[in-house]
Amino acid sequence: MNAAIYRGPGDIRIEDRPDPHIEESTDVVVRVTHTAICGSDLWFYRGEEDRETGSPVGHEPMGIVDAVGADVRSVEPGDRVFAPFAISCGECEFCRNGLQTACVNGRFWGDLDCGGQGEQIRVPQADGTLVRVPDRYADDEDTLQALLPLTDVMGTGHHAAVSADVSPGDTVVVVGDGAVGLCGVLAARRLGAQRIIAMGHHDDRLDMARDFGATATVSSRGQQAIEEVNTLTHGGANHVLECVGAESALETAAQIVRPGGNIGYVGVPHIESSEFVSQLFAKNASFTGGPAPVRAYAEELMADVLQGTLDPSPIFTKTVDLDGIPEGYAAMDEREAIKVLVTVNT
Amino acid sequence: MNAAIYRGPGDIRIEDRPDPHIEESTDVVVRVTHTAICGSDLWFYRGEEDRETGSPVGHEPMGIVDAVGADVRSVEPGDRVFAPFAISCGECEFCRNGLQTACVNGRFWGDLDCGGQGEQIRVPQADGTLVRVPDRYADDEDTLQALLPLTDVMGTGHHAAVSADVSPGDTVVVVGDGAVGLCGVLAARRLGAQRIIAMGHHDDRLDMARDFGATATVSSRGQQAIEEVNTLTHGGANHVLECVGAESALETAAQIVRPGGNIGYVGVPHIESSEFVSQLFAKNASFTGGPAPVRAYAEELMADVLQGTLDPSPIFTKTVDLDGIPEGYAAMDEREAIKVLVTVNT
Repeated sequence: MNAAIYRGPGDIRIEDRPDPHIEESTDVVVRVTHTAICGSDLWFYRGEEDRETGSPVGHEPMGIVDAVGADVRSVEPGDRVFAPFAISCGECEFCRNGLQTACVNGRFWGDLDCGGQGEQIRVPQADGTLVRVPDRYADDEDTLQALLPLTDVMGTGHHAAVSADVSPGDTVVVVGDGAVGLCGVLAARRLGAQRIIAMGHHDDRLDMARDFGATATVSSRGQQAIEEVNTLTHGGANHVLECVGAESALETAAQIVRPGGNIGYVGVPHIESSEFVSQLFAKNASFTGGPAPVRAYAEELMADVLQGTLDPSPIFTKTVDLDGIPEGYAAMDEREAIKVLVTVNT
Repeated sequence: MNAAIYRGPGDIRIEDRPDPHIEESTDVVVRVTHTAICGSDLWFYRGEEDRETGSPVGHEPMGIVDAVGADVRSVEPGDRVFAPFAISCGECEFCRNGLQTACVNGRFWGDLDCGGQGEQIRVPQADGTLVRVPDRYADDEDTLQALLPLTDVMGTGHHAAVSADVSPGDTVVVVGDGAVGLCGVLAARRLGAQRIIAMGHHDDRLDMARDFGATATVSSRGQQAIEEVNTLTHGGANHVLECVGAESALETAAQIVRPGGNIGYVGVPHIESSEFVSQLFAKNASFTGGPAPVRAYAEELMADVLQGTLDPSPIFTKTVDLDGIPEGYAAMDEREAIKVLVTVNT
C-alpha cells in the first residue's frame, strides 16, 4: 500500500509500505477513505522540530473497517470509523477520567507503520481508540467531512475552550486563526459564549471566524493588538483560548487575560522565554491545557454534527488525493490553505 | 517614629521617620504592636531583586487603631486590627470577586511612608484593607500571634491549596518547607486532604510539617526527591502546592504533578528557563496561582483560629523587638529562623 513518509524538512513522499495486518487481538485494520494534514505537522515540515526521517506522517484517519482482531467488541468489518490523533486503551485511570492523551498504554500514529496518511492503517487498542459513525450517516459525504475534524482540530479547539472554563454568557478571546483557533471559536459559541473576539493575521480566516460565531476580530499585531483587545474587553477577558503555541501567542494570551481569568492552551509550546509566567502570576491567571483528549469529546461533538448544529468542515479549503499530499503540505506551509482534506481510495 | 528601612542588600536599618497622620478621609493610623519578617523579602535582602534604597520594609502589620478618617466605617480608635500585605479598596470588581491583589485601587506597603515594620502606619482604604479582631480576643497574646500569619503566609499557603483545588480525601504534595509551605500543609489539612507529603531540606521544618499534618516528608534533592514522591503517589499527585518560586521548585512541581492534576503556585516566580511549561503541557496539568488575596481569606481563617482549630504561630521561631529587626533579617537569611515575629511598643 502507499503512505506518506517524512524524508526531511519540506520533503514528504508517497512510498510503498507493507500492508498492515492484525498483530494483536485488540487490533483493527482500517481502509482509509479520508484523512487530513495538520498545522502541528508544520513544525517538523519546517525543520523546527526533530522527526525521524522515514517515519510515516498523519494522525487524523477516517475509513472503513477491513479486519478486526479476536477481542475487538465495538466495531465490525464494513463500519465507518474515525480515530483521534492519539491511541488510547479506554480502560486505564486516565482514559476513564477523560484524559486519553495520558493513557498509560497510549501511543501515537507516528510510531506505527502508517501514520494515517496512507491507504490502510493498523489501529491498536481499537475498542478504546476508534469512534464508530452511526450507520445512517456512514456514507454521507458532507457529514463525513464535518466529522473528520473531530479526529484532532475540532476536539482540540473544544479542549481549549473547556480548559479556559468557557460557560454561557462569557466573553472569550481566541488567539490564532488557524484551524484550531477557528474550531476554538466554534467551540466557544457552542458552549454559550456571548462575545467571541478572534485574533489573527489573515483576513480570509478572520472572515471564517465571523462565520463561525466571532463577534469581533483583531488583525493587528504585537502591542497594538493587545491594546485593542484590552479596550474591547475593558481590561482583559476572563477566558482566553491560546491556539498557536508560539511564544508570541503565549505572551499575548498572558497580556489579554483578565486578573483571575483562565487561559486554555492547546498549541504545543515552542518557547524559550518564561517572561509570560510573570504576567500569569501577577494576574492570578489560571493556565491549563495540553494535548487534547479528543477521544473524550468525540461522542458529544459527533452528536452535534449529526444533528446539524456543528460543522467545522469549512476549515478544509483544499482537497487532495493521496498523491497530492506533498502538494497539500506545501499549500499549508505557504498558508494557501487553512487545512487540507485528503481523500483516499475514492 | 522609628521604622525599618532598606539601605541595600543585607542592610536594614531602624531610622526616624515622620509620624503618619490621616491624609485622606478613608485612612486609618494604626499603632503597630506586632509585625513580622517575610521570606519574600529575602529576594531583595540578598540582592536578587531590585528595591529602592531608602524604602520602608515590612508588610504584615497588626496593632491598635489610633486615628480614623471621617469616612471610615468599620473600625474605631482602640480596635485591634491587622492588615494583609496588599492594600485593597473592597469595592471594585476584583475585591468583590475575592481577588483583592488585583484591586484597581490597590497599593503595597512599600510605596508608603512605613512598610509595616515600624511604630505606626497609615492604612489607606482602611474599610477595604483592615481586619478587626473581635474585642473578646483583642488582648490575648497567644491568639494574636496565631492571627498574625493571616496577614500573609497563612493566607498564602491557603491560596496555594485553593489554587491547587484541594478537597477532602485528596493526596497533596507541598513543595517547600518555609513558612508558606508549612502554612500550605496546615491549609491542605484544613481542607480535608488525606495524604500530605511535605518536601524540603531542613529536618526541623519537616518535623514541624508533620506536626502541622503532613503524613510523609521527603528531604532528598533533585531527581531522587522526584522519584520518591512519584513512588509514594504511584505516579504523581493530583494536587501540588508550589510554595517557593525558584526555578527548581517549579520544575519539581511539574514533574510530580499527576497528568490532569493541579499545581497551585504562590512563590513569586524567579525563573529563566521555560522547560517546566513543556512538562505541564504534556500532562495537561493546570497551573494556577499568584499573589494571594489574603484579605479574602481573613474571616474564614480567623474563625478557625478563634475556635482553636488553626494555629500557625509555631512558624515564629524567633522574636525580636523593633531594634532587633536587622538581626531578624539576618537570622532568616541564614535560615536560623523559619519566620521572625516582631513585637513593637510593648
